[in-house]
Formats: sequence, C-alpha cells, structure tokens
Amino acid sequence: MLAPIALLLAARSDLKSDIDRLRVKGLTELGAHRMLTDLTTNVGARLSGSPGAAKAVVWVGDKLRAMGLRNVREVPCMVPHWVRGQQERASMTSQGNTTKLSVCALGMSVATPSGGVKAQVIEVGSLEEMATVGEKARGKVVFFNKRFDATLSNTFEAYGGAVGTRFGAASAAAKYGAVAVMVRSMTLANDDFPHTGAMGYEDGVNKVAAVALGAQSADRLSEAIHHGRVTVKLETFCKTLPDAPSASVAGEIVGTEKPNEVIVLGGHLDSWDLGRGAHDDGAGVTQAMEALRLIKGLGWKPKRTIRVVAWMNEENGGRGAKSYADMAAQSGQKHVMAMESDSGGFMPRAVGVSKEKVERVAPWLDLLRPFGVEQFREGGADADNGPLEAEGAALFSLEPENQRYFDYHHTASDTIDKVNARELEMGALVMASLAWLCSEEGVD
Amino acid sequence: MLAPIALLLAARSDLKSDIDRLRVKGLTELGAHRMLTDLTTNVGARLSGSPGAAKAVVWVGDKLRAMGLRNVREVPCMVPHWVRGQQERASMTSQGNTTKLSVCALGMSVATPSGGVKAQVIEVGSLEEMATVGEKARGKVVFFNKRFDATLSNTFEAYGGAVGTRFGAASAAAKYGAVAVMVRSMTLANDDFPHTGAMGYEDGVNKVAAVALGAQSADRLSEAIHHGRVTVKLETFCKTLPDAPSASVAGEIVGTEKPNEVIVLGGHLDSWDLGRGAHDDGAGVTQAMEALRLIKGLGWKPKRTIRVVAWMNEENGGRGAKSYADMAAQSGQKHVMAMESDSGGFMPRAVGVSKEKVERVAPWLDLLRPFGVEQFREGGADADNGPLEAEGAALFSLEPENQRYFDYHHTASDTIDKVNARELEMGALVMASLAWLCSEEGVD
Repeated sequence: MLAPIALLLAARSDLKSDIDRLRVKGLTELGAHRMLTDLTTNVGARLSGSPGAAKAVVWVGDKLRAMGLRNVREVPCMVPHWVRGQQERASMTSQGNTTKLSVCALGMSVATPSGGVKAQVIEVGSLEEMATVGEKARGKVVFFNKRFDATLSNTFEAYGGAVGTRFGAASAAAKYGAVAVMVRSMTLANDDFPHTGAMGYEDGVNKVAAVALGAQSADRLSEAIHHGRVTVKLETFCKTLPDAPSASVAGEIVGTEKPNEVIVLGGHLDSWDLGRGAHDDGAGVTQAMEALRLIKGLGWKPKRTIRVVAWMNEENGGRGAKSYADMAAQSGQKHVMAMESDSGGFMPRAVGVSKEKVERVAPWLDLLRPFGVEQFREGGADADNGPLEAEGAALFSLEPENQRYFDYHHTASDTIDKVNARELEMGALVMASLAWLCSEEGVD
Repeated sequence: MLAPIALLLAARSDLKSDIDRLRVKGLTELGAHRMLTDLTTNVGARLSGSPGAAKAVVWVGDKLRAMGLRNVREVPCMVPHWVRGQQERASMTSQGNTTKLSVCALGMSVATPSGGVKAQVIEVGSLEEMATVGEKARGKVVFFNKRFDATLSNTFEAYGGAVGTRFGAASAAAKYGAVAVMVRSMTLANDDFPHTGAMGYEDGVNKVAAVALGAQSADRLSEAIHHGRVTVKLETFCKTLPDAPSASVAGEIVGTEKPNEVIVLGGHLDSWDLGRGAHDDGAGVTQAMEALRLIKGLGWKPKRTIRVVAWMNEENGGRGAKSYADMAAQSGQKHVMAMESDSGGFMPRAVGVSKEKVERVAPWLDLLRPFGVEQFREGGADADNGPLEAEGAALFSLEPENQRYFDYHHTASDTIDKVNARELEMGALVMASLAWLCSEEGVD
C-alpha cells in the first residue's frame, strides 16, 4: 500500500501531465487568437446597447454551442445605451492660427449644444487645481492636462492615479460655469489617438460636454496656452438613449462529482465603440472560451462544473456582472472560483488571488511557470468577478505584462494586429490550468 | 557605534535610493528609445563591412563623446564582408501554375549561377532526413521544412532546436548533388517575411546557394509538393568580398577607487542588412549607452570603471568580440563584470548570471523587480560577453520577454515601430542598476 505522501506525489504528477497536455494543444492550435480574429473582424466593436453588442451575444452563444458546451444561455440585463453619433470636431485658435485637435467624446457625456461651443480654454493639472481656479472657469472650456506618472513601473498604477480626472472633470468644471471640458487621454503613448472611457455627472450640476484629447493634441494645446490666449471650438453629437435589453452569455462543462460547485472563467464582451475591443476585452472573453475548448477538446470530465461567462456592460455600467451575480445567488449552486481576464492579451506575469487563498494555491505556481506566471499576488478582484466574492468564490485575475496596455486602451487602435497569438494563448492556458486545478483539487 | 548589520542595512537603503533615482530619470527621459530611433532612422541597417556599419561606428563614438564619456575609442577588427546584391527572385511551378515565393539569401551564401537555377524541388524535414534521402537530391533543389517546436514555451529553445538546419542545410544537401537549398524561416510567426541569418559550408563540399523562405511561402511550397511534382526557379546575387576593416566602439566612466576593475555593458552594433536591426541588436547597444548616460547624468562617480561596448560583427563572425577580448587580455585591467543585451528590447523578465555568482547577486533581486526582473538564472554568457569569462569577468545577460522576438528577427520588419519605449528603457535600467551595484559593492 502506498504511503499518503506517495499518493500525493502521484496526484501532482498527474496534474503536471495534464497541464503539459493543455500546453501542447494550446500552443499548437492557438484557438484564442482564431476566435479573437473572428470576433474583431466579423463582429467588431461592441458598445453596450449597440447592434455590435447584440451580434456579439449571438456570436458567443453560437461558439459555445459549437464547442459542445452545456447549458449555453443568456443572462439578461438592461444596459445604458450611449451613442457617439457623428465624428466629433475640435480645433484651437491661437495667435490667428487655427489647427485641428484630435478628440473623441467621453462615454456617457452629453453633446455640446447644437452648433458646438466656442470659448477661451484654460488649463488645469488636476481636479484639485480646478477647485482653486474656481470662477475663472466661467464661460470657458477647461482643459484637464493630468498626465500619467511615468515614473511608476506599473502602468495600471499610473492609470489609477489619473483616471479620476476623466470621470469627474465635467462636473468639477461645470460647478464654476465652464461650458465644456477636454481631458488629456489616459495613456503614456506619444501619439494622437484620443482615448475614450466612462465619465459621470454629479447630481445637481449642469451637464457639459466632455471629450478626450489625444496626447499630442494635448501637448500642442498646452504649449499654445502657455504662449497666450487660446480659443477652442468643439462640437460633439453623442447622447444617451433609454436603457436597452442585453445579456451576458454563459456555457459550461458540467461537473461529474460536484456539479453544483461552479468555477467561472470570463472576460467582458462589451467594448468601447472605437477600435475593435481586441485587448479590451475580446482577449479575456476568447481566452476564457479557449480554456473551456481545450478542456472539452481533451475529453476531460471535471469533478466540478467549469463555466465560461462573457459579461456584458463592464465599460459603462457593470450591469452584466450584477445580473450574473444575482442569478448566481438564486441558483442554488455555489461559486467556488471566479477568474477574470481584463488587462489585455499580453504575456502573463502573475495571477492575483483572494488574500485568504494565496497560501492554498502556492503549490500550483510551478505548474503555471511555462505560461509566464512568476507569482501569485494578493488581489484577484476585478470589475466582473468581484460581485461573486459575496457568493463565496475565490477570486483570481490574470495579470499580464502591462507596459503596452494603455497604448491602445479605449482607442481606435485596439485592434487584432496588436495581439500576439502565443501571448494570448498563454493567458488562456493559465485560465484553463487554474480551472482544472480548482476543479480536481478544490480550492478550499 | 553601529553594529555591522545596521551598517549593512544602511548601505542597502542608499543603494535602493540610487536605483529609485535611476528609475525616475530613465522612465521620464526614455533615452534608449530616442537613441534607437536615431540609429535606426539615420544610420539604418549595419551589416559588417557595409557603409551602414561604418556609419554606425562613427555614430556611437560621437554619441559617447557627446555624453562626456572618457576614453572613447574604436577597437579594430577585420570582418567578413558579405553583400546581398540585388533582390532575390524565386518562384515555383506546380501543375502548370507559377507563383512567386518570398525568399532572401542566407548570410554568407554563394549566389546561384548566373541566370539562376531551375530544378525539381524535394522536401525534407531535417538534416537527419536529408541523410536518408541521399542521392535522390542529385540535380534538385532541397527544401528544408524544419519548423520551430511551437509547444515549447521559450522561443529561444525552439530556435535552438531549428537553427542548425539553417546553418548546415547547404552542405548537407550539396554532398548528394543538390543544386541549391531553401530553408524555412526561423520563426513562429504566420507571415511571409523571409528571415536571413548566418549559414556555413563544410570544407570539401560543393558550395550551393542557400535561401530562407517566408513561412507562408514554405507552407505553400510544402502543400504543392504533397500534390505532385514542383519545379523551383531561384536566382540570387550575393557574394563574399575580402575581409574589411571595422571596429567595435567603447567609452567609459573611469572608476574613482578601482579604475582598473572594469564593468562592461554592451550589445552588438552590426545587424543584418534587411530591416533596421532595431531589436537585433540596436536595442542592446542603445540600452548599454543609456545605462552610462543615466549614471553620468546623475553625476555619480563609480568606484570601478563602467564601460559601454558596441561590439562589431556578432551576426556573421564574432570578430569584434574576439578583438575586444584580446585587447582586454593585454590591457592590464581586470574585467570584473560583462553584461550583454542581445535578446530584443522587450520587457525584462530575468537576468542570466554566471553560475558561481547566482548566490552573490541574489540580495539585489528586489532592487530589479521594478524593471520586471523576477529572477536571476544560471547563465549569463552570450556571443559577445562570453570571451570575457576567460578574463575573469562575471557574466550577465538580459533576458526579456521572448514571445515576439522571432517574429522580427533578421527580417525587413525589425524596425523601430516594434519597440516600446518603456520596455526598452526598463532593460537599460536593469543594466544601469547592475553596473552600479557591481561598481559600488563588487561582485566577488
């Protein structure tokens, strides 16, 4: 009879050979990239409430059924329905010269009045500086030239330090009578793509139009302001329609021993309307789909149920995550693990894990190293898996290399050519491996 | 009086603040990318013996002098002088249809006879298979369709398993009377850029022309061969001229306490003639230059001499590395550390270190984590720093993320647009940090 330690080693050796098989199949077939190419080419942009988003919901369901997954279904939600309308127009006039500025409306913004606004522009560096400028903003356009802190190694930290400006600029300036705001794009890239993204309005404050400025346009505008009076002309055409019906999409491999213990892998299906949502977050959706395709394709029968979810409306509402969590709470099933990929389809470097699980999963690290994972870090909660913590799920998030993410984020350049097929697949392999490990060994 | 442990901690805290200052300066100024843009735009390709290489030698010297480095000098060497001549031509004819093939001559190959060769093509998978095919190759073109092993996580391992075919195909086939060889490009990318690179001839074997085939052309050719008889027409115009005078270039910050203990950082200045040698290895050269620019710019006075070397002729001879090592042996100075960057300007992940130094440097790892370095790995020897091991130098090599390197390697697409400024700078910061640590703390 084998001693328990030998049994344990035997189990581990089997798991290592399972992960090897996932690797060989994944790196040979590169299924995530094939699916992402299809999604970005044949569906395209997928802003909540848009025809693209509706098409994407059908696309995911069809793919999951074609893979032979069970219980393929839509989880309905009502979503905000913001539309950009026609291409924005912006220019600045300084010392008699008028030049174009590269802009796009921020998501959820109102439009400028018909015919646009034309006013002197003043520059502030932050929301805090706006408060000190105060009444000087009356009747003017305020340009928020908040830069990422380039000295931070991690670009997500730099984003975290700047994105509050994008969200809050409009009301911060309109409080003092500003007629519109322009916000420097949330990026470290030295190009002129404007980066959209969600903004919001404070109750009781006049709603004014908010646009993002490409980084080079922001630099030109700032330089002009430092040389004298600058007038901006700005016209946007966006509007928010009534909430629209939409859905997240799920499908699964039903567990053989504990079918009511659910392991969820996912990303968000909606994207901004610019570009094709390749890194954000077609990558996460297709990685999660690929993880189930690999496990299913190897003919494995997991002990626990492994499910893929493509969440709707992460970008401007989070309605899909909420409706999915509500469904989960009423399902009679227990969500034991929920892993999200929403940081781009770059080479994996780490996996964030709920604090209380870091020790539990540590023995799995060596199994993930072939896919680039060097550490488990405390974390794991992201926008869409976060609500499942209340259901008792251990949260996991994929943390890929981050230097290039904000070069493309929310822009027209978030397209498939920025995604490397092997790097994308490595993320799918991390997800497949963790789902399989959690299914077979449990994560308690 | 402080206890020794407190002194040690104090020293470490100072070093941490030094590395922080390097990070802030580097990530703010991004000097490596500015230099690499200049090199790839205003100098361009730099094949040994070419006008571009000569221009590059001057370019580096000028830059090093402009930064205020001391002892800026050329270290002469004679280099092989191979020239491609006009654009190669290749086509295949199968079932009456003739289509173009994307090819380039392999470096050091002879040309086809004037007017080209036209012959039936046969396919083999490897050098080993060539030996079994034997006399069937007589009078034919042999197509070596050796693929990278895609299931390996590390693309350098995949390259290592395939590149022997590129080097040895011509003689392996000519032994049996083949008239030319075509070798599948050394890449995992699914595109049609042919990848050049060095090949060689065995003494006493007839020299036949060798070309690389783009991956998609290789797939088309292979498919055609599997459907029936295929004829290839191939014409190349390359030749090897007499060895030419060239040089590596060095400059330094002279050590204040131990000027005769030398720390070398470098990359290779030559490149293949296709593309602009951005990742291979303009990246390494400009990272090493940037490391010294940062240290010099901060006004620091290192205890030991910190030197940058741009080695000539890594790609097809290694003459620069040899002449530099010969110079080092006769210099009366001791090379204590030699670090090379020649794996592309991607985000750092690890540093290779001479086996006997892995323990010594382990305490420095946390200082390098902000630049992406997650581990010191046994290794450190690369083509150009390797010869300095005999001088007693501890060898270090930068190991960046490797998934995309062989997408561009030795092709027309190895251009500056494939390099991210922050990722490149992170490598420069690893080099600057290690040079500084070795200078101030020693590496014995």
